[in-house]
Amino acid sequence: MATRKIDFPVANVRRYLEPGPIVLVSSAWRDKRNIMTMGWHTVMEFVPALVGCVIAGGNYSFSLIRRSGECVINLPTTALTDTVVGIGNCSGAAVDKFEKFGLTALPARNVKASLIAECHANFECRLKDDSLVDRYNFFIFEVVKAHVAPRPKYPQTLHYTGDGVFVVSGKIVSRRSQFRPKML
Amino acid sequence: MATRKIDFPVANVRRYLEPGPIVLVSSAWRDKRNIMTMGWHTVMEFVPALVGCVIAGGNYSFSLIRRSGECVINLPTTALTDTVVGIGNCSGAAVDKFEKFGLTALPARNVKASLIAECHANFECRLKDDSLVDRYNFFIFEVVKAHVAPRPKYPQTLHYTGDGVFVVSGKIVSRRSQFRPKML
Repeated sequence: MATRKIDFPVANVRRYLEPGPIVLVSSAWRDKRNIMTMGWHTVMEFVPALVGCVIAGGNYSFSLIRRSGECVINLPTTALTDTVVGIGNCSGAAVDKFEKFGLTALPARNVKASLIAECHANFECRLKDDSLVDRYNFFIFEVVKAHVAPRPKYPQTLHYTGDGVFVVSGKIVSRRSQFRPKML
Repeated sequence: MATRKIDFPVANVRRYLEPGPIVLVSSAWRDKRNIMTMGWHTVMEFVPALVGCVIAGGNYSFSLIRRSGECVINLPTTALTDTVVGIGNCSGAAVDKFEKFGLTALPARNVKASLIAECHANFECRLKDDSLVDRYNFFIFEVVKAHVAPRPKYPQTLHYTGDGVFVVSGKIVSRRSQFRPKML
């Protein structure tokens, strides 16, 4: 089911990405589009809002992203577990994954790749630095626009351990009172 | 409490790091040592076993790691929640964090930095590539030795969302039967 989103400050996307969830990366180049499942990513900076990630050269998405210099990082919840697995186990060279998995492609604001409406959050990204792509397939993106569903505040996300097994995000623990203000 | 570890294949450290836990990074340089809390990291390759991470230049650990070219990435569980927060909220320039937090420093096999005995896993790392350190504080390490407690199989880990709030890893969901063998 599609969830309504509101604008979210890009400098704060660590809120959703730092916990390390599996994400769905959507891309587009000319008349082609695709979605891939990705688990190798990290926040790199607040301002500009940088995210680094590994996109293996064998993926159909690799050339779409390298050529367009854009993508959308979408955050699925456990409601999409089978979709996440299905997307990771077929190739966009053979099928249109939006159609195959019944996902809704919404237009993004600043990039050509589509937002996946059924995801909890969508982060529009532009390629900022490709200097480590040849050596490590490592792309550094700047998040230029963020859309997040206001509820639930802590969505149940999937965290991949390999071997077909996910750990699901569980309870929330606040230690806010123990932090020095500048460390928050 | 210290946990007994066994050798673990370095090519499979994604098992513990890909879910995105907060880790404790221990370092040493000459007569100095330190521990820092780190949430910005990603697996980058299986073989060699590469992990990329951001270590801000303002951290006391930054120079110890840059000069020694080594560190240990230690995986704490929820049993160490207050220690993780405490370590992230004081500076190694002022205190010895092993002493302050009552942590046991065990000798590593291949690096000078110590293993933190109380953590669930310890990954000995050597700096592999510092080409993005000046621009992004981004270090690429090779894990050269891994030590993991055999139980529990899925330790409760902490995943940071910012603002003093952690999400704890929860239930385990296997979709192994839906994966193509080469995607496992």
